[in-house]
Amino acid sequence: MPYVELNLTVGATKEQKAQLVEGITDLLVKVLNKNPSSTQIVIKEVPVDSWGIAGRSVKSLRKEGDTAFISKQ
Amino acid sequence: MPYVELNLTVGATKEQKAQLVEGITDLLVKVLNKNPSSTQIVIKEVPVDSWGIAGRSVKSLRKEGDTAFISKQ
Amino acid sequence: MPYVELNLTVGATKEQKAQLVEGITDLLVKVLNKNPSSTQIVIKEVPVDSWGIAGRSVKSLRKEGDTAFISKQ
Amino acid sequence: MPYVELNLTVGATKEQKAQLVEGITDLLVKVLNKNPSSTQIVIKEVPVDSWGIAGRSVKSLRKEGDTAFISKQ
Amino acid sequence: MPYVELNLTVGATKEQKAQLVEGITDLLVKVLNKNPSSTQIVIKEVPVDSWGIAGRSVKSLRKEGDTAFISKQ
Amino acid sequence: MPYVELNLTVGATKEQKAQLVEGITDLLVKVLNKNPSSTQIVIKEVPVDSWGIAGRSVKSLRKEGDTAFISKQ
Repeated sequence: MPYVELNLTVGATKEQKAQLVEGITDLLVKVLNKNPSSTQIVIKEVPVDSWGIAGRSVKSLRKEGDTAFISKQ
Repeated sequence: MPYVELNLTVGATKEQKAQLVEGITDLLVKVLNKNPSSTQIVIKEVPVDSWGIAGRSVKSLRKEGDTAFISKQ
Repeated sequence: MPYVELNLTVGATKEQKAQLVEGITDLLVKVLNKNPSSTQIVIKEVPVDSWGIAGRSVKSLRKEGDTAFISKQ
Repeated sequence: MPYVELNLTVGATKEQKAQLVEGITDLLVKVLNKNPSSTQIVIKEVPVDSWGIAGRSVKSLRKEGDTAFISKQ
Repeated sequence: MPYVELNLTVGATKEQKAQLVEGITDLLVKVLNKNPSSTQIVIKEVPVDSWGIAGRSVKSLRKEGDTAFISKQ
Repeated sequence: MPYVELNLTVGATKEQKAQLVEGITDLLVKVLNKNPSSTQIVIKEVPVDSWGIAGRSVKSLRKEGDTAFISKQ
């Protein structure tokens, strides 16, 4: 422990995933003095038609440029 | 918030996913007066050989018509 | 299956939880023809200082009335 | 209930998944007297570049033979 | 990895939790040759009025003896 | 989205939680250009007798000073 699960819409590159794993691990070591070797970070990627915000899928919100409440990518 | 995760066996169509996202968001707004723009619904699809009930996979239960405790689809 | 996990900030009453369980189960039966007896809905309640949006806790956002992107309750 | 989620790196065979589903269900029946027909086990497989330990991905740790804190497969 | 999350209704004793942790770890070592020191098992306990099956809470199902599809304890 | 769930053993202070929420949000904005107002971070705290590593609870591992594979706090 800790175990961190990042749920993201599909699209992060391998380099970006590596940056997230490294950055979150460093943060947990710095803030909570956690042991890096027992700190596990898992990235779960979700298709944009399987993620809903404000009652609609991210796919349709992005298609219609309705992105005030979501991430553009 | 809220964040809702629906774990389903693979097979829902885009239209069905949209109905679920819309329906659950409406329910959370109606029952708990939640802000739709911060209400996130994520659908995670699981292969039928990776979902076990009563000690066996949904795949084998469906193959053998043993569906009293599971969903047929 | 399905298994649905609702992550909410603390505060829902028993009656509201019952409405959510019933409503989501009915929706899954109607939309996906799921077997209600294998449909499980779990509500996980999270303290407001343990839920962050836009880099700040819901607790501090609500305290300062900064609620455009969150639910007021 | 119970609902058990096994997060694994990709690679388990169908037979191994079946053994895990059966074994964990039996354990829950034996230890907690749970009803097998309401005991659900879900296996979620994660690519090795999406699982980080000690700040690096399992993929790079395995490539460099740095496996003291991880599983070799 | 692996990371296993057991969602249970409240009530397991410390000894039962220890048996589950040991049993599941042994199973993962035996079936998948996983490294026990990177195998993490987390038990999350849920109040009976926050777990719904067949559209009703486990609490009310147990109260009315309607336990065909749930665990009695 | 994204939605990040941090599973930690009990013990983080409010200030530490705030640092984690802020740090992870900043990282997601920097690395993936995510919209902070739709980035949700949830911290779930787990009792030490409910978290197992290497087949034993964190509680017993810490009690016996067997902390090579875990975090001391």
